[in-house]
Amino acid sequence: MRGFSRRTEVARVQALIRERTAPLGAETVGLHEAAGRVLARPVVAAVDVPAFPRSAMDGYAVISEETYGAGPYNPLPFRVVGEVTPGRTFAGVVGRGEAVRIMTGAPLPAGADAVLMAEYTSEANGTMVATGSVAPHKNIGRIGEDIRAGTELLAAGRRLRPQDLGVLASVGEGRIEVVARPRVALLITGNELLKPGEKPHGALIVDSNSVMLAALVARDGGEVSAVLHLPDERETIRDALLTAPGDLLVVTGGTSVGVEDHAPTLVAEAGELAVHGVAMRPSAPTGLGWVQGRPVFLLPGNPVSCLAAYDFFVGLAVRRLAGRGDAWPYRCRRLPLRERIASQIGRVDYARVRIAGDEAALLSTSGASILSSTTVADGFVVVAQDSEGLAAGATADVWLYD
Amino acid sequence: MRGFSRRTEVARVQALIRERTAPLGAETVGLHEAAGRVLARPVVAAVDVPAFPRSAMDGYAVISEETYGAGPYNPLPFRVVGEVTPGRTFAGVVGRGEAVRIMTGAPLPAGADAVLMAEYTSEANGTMVATGSVAPHKNIGRIGEDIRAGTELLAAGRRLRPQDLGVLASVGEGRIEVVARPRVALLITGNELLKPGEKPHGALIVDSNSVMLAALVARDGGEVSAVLHLPDERETIRDALLTAPGDLLVVTGGTSVGVEDHAPTLVAEAGELAVHGVAMRPSAPTGLGWVQGRPVFLLPGNPVSCLAAYDFFVGLAVRRLAGRGDAWPYRCRRLPLRERIASQIGRVDYARVRIAGDEAALLSTSGASILSSTTVADGFVVVAQDSEGLAAGATADVWLYD
Repeated sequence: MRGFSRRTEVARVQALIRERTAPLGAETVGLHEAAGRVLARPVVAAVDVPAFPRSAMDGYAVISEETYGAGPYNPLPFRVVGEVTPGRTFAGVVGRGEAVRIMTGAPLPAGADAVLMAEYTSEANGTMVATGSVAPHKNIGRIGEDIRAGTELLAAGRRLRPQDLGVLASVGEGRIEVVARPRVALLITGNELLKPGEKPHGALIVDSNSVMLAALVARDGGEVSAVLHLPDERETIRDALLTAPGDLLVVTGGTSVGVEDHAPTLVAEAGELAVHGVAMRPSAPTGLGWVQGRPVFLLPGNPVSCLAAYDFFVGLAVRRLAGRGDAWPYRCRRLPLRERIASQIGRVDYARVRIAGDEAALLSTSGASILSSTTVADGFVVVAQDSEGLAAGATADVWLYD
Repeated sequence: MRGFSRRTEVARVQALIRERTAPLGAETVGLHEAAGRVLARPVVAAVDVPAFPRSAMDGYAVISEETYGAGPYNPLPFRVVGEVTPGRTFAGVVGRGEAVRIMTGAPLPAGADAVLMAEYTSEANGTMVATGSVAPHKNIGRIGEDIRAGTELLAAGRRLRPQDLGVLASVGEGRIEVVARPRVALLITGNELLKPGEKPHGALIVDSNSVMLAALVARDGGEVSAVLHLPDERETIRDALLTAPGDLLVVTGGTSVGVEDHAPTLVAEAGELAVHGVAMRPSAPTGLGWVQGRPVFLLPGNPVSCLAAYDFFVGLAVRRLAGRGDAWPYRCRRLPLRERIASQIGRVDYARVRIAGDEAALLSTSGASILSSTTVADGFVVVAQDSEGLAAGATADVWLYD
């Protein structure tokens, strides 16, 4: 029941995660499930878009030369020999003095070299009268104008936007290779815990961390592969460390140095306990190790500490495995602080704040409260390790939860 | 094949959407699927958290008075009469001169009124020696300290954060009422269109809008209830307008004033065509109407125009139906423009830009290109209706796609 003999610096833990995590392998998914996924390989266009010369306007396909000199005071007649709409092909060839009615997106008929806009025409009894001229190749989308076959459309590592999916569809891609989603197993330990959805009673409380962590993991591009609620028993926890399915394990609870804190010693026995105890507040009882090649994060059971440790460490690992950037997904606003945020040199603080007016106000809590710290808060401020605290009135980066 | 006789202002269309769309009704979902959803009703805590006085430290539960005067030079002995860990209850009552070993989170035994931190103790042979004192109620989380039964935890309209789900779990909520997801039917019209995943060939091109729109709808809190690929036939499109499942319909293609532009007249016949033609570039051939009480958006088939019209109009409706705010989900950066963006008074422009250095550079395209406009772009700048354009060097709001 004593404190940590030594605490690892936050930056050192993050560096360790960066050194030892890299994007997972590829998996193939359909376009309809690819939004937000990360491309595992570049996509090169297999076709030209458009693949045929197509009209950019509603009007008439003509031999441009034939329209020269046409104007409001010199209307020129053309014989309308047909019509072409998108998806159809005009079977004949446009000759001198002839015109084919054409819609935007339709392929240009053979023989024609331009489209005269409808605005410069009138039509009656099979004759189109041109009151304007058109230059060669005008109002036509050339082959490959949008996309040339052979060009790289999207680079590996690209996080796919809705419009990227449209571009991929347009070149005939239906399934693409993306970085696999990291699968995260949650090992929720504690004899006192009921499962989410149960009613608290007696000395029992409800596990709140698993639902929070599952949502955080999904936000960062992963998915939860198992949620195991485990009693504080060494054998049971050891089994789960060795057999739970997933690319990454998160253990909550029992991560400190008390008599029922089994997880750190179990990780050390079964693999490597690289970090135990971190120089931060909250979340000091955080650990990181590897068992059978899989990273194992030990997070405090206290929900606020659990969230802070996720934000600093687990999220970084999940995003890296998912091929996303290291950066936080939170938006940042620079705001003056309403009051001082105290800290100590050698320790990183994760301080919850509310935005009031255009100031960030520290939520004065004992550190453990669920509600006041993470639900009432609009975001958090990080006090760096080399700082004794931030002064009232100083401008700080506020990371917004929403 | 003529232009629009009259174009509605962008702001007027948006006002119409605001007037005529409101959050859908509630549905009940489990906590594990509630992240990002919008609460339909406030949640009031049914229980206190904690529901019992609990230890905030590892140490010993004692009668605080008994520790008075203890110090390094005046160690005081206590008889250890038991241990209590989280989830358990100590069966007896702590008396004078007695102590119960207690772990963080465990319920305080009857008789005790404080927890003496382990740091101020040592234990051997059933005796704990205190080298420090503790004040009454110290190191104890009182009943209701985190959450008091009867208080409103989260307000209606709240978009649920990961930590909110944790708070809901902790008060015993397992299923909650959230605003239903708007169901959007996509009616993709055009004889020239193949389905996503098919290879373009001949005069046929692949529909790229449905996959893009589906991803945009999901981003804004909706879900696609149907994707119908329809030929340019009045009867077929009319049937779909009347029978497609969903809260909102989106028709792409055939929304202008050409001979194959059926959708606007069909909406006018079957219901109300409130808008046809919007004063913006791109996306002028956009429409909005209501059929059988459901909003119907008519979007141009051109992918860039389709995206812009979604961003200005459909997204607003989807977010409002979903109970989310009106605001764009895009982050905004204020950046100087590298070159002038031309526009006209009376028209809103949606100009795609790249960020180069710390400037926004206009993508010079003919307006139709898929690639250069929405995939190469980092975001877009909106030129307001009352502006003739933005000068080079002027600072503009750049809305970021990522």
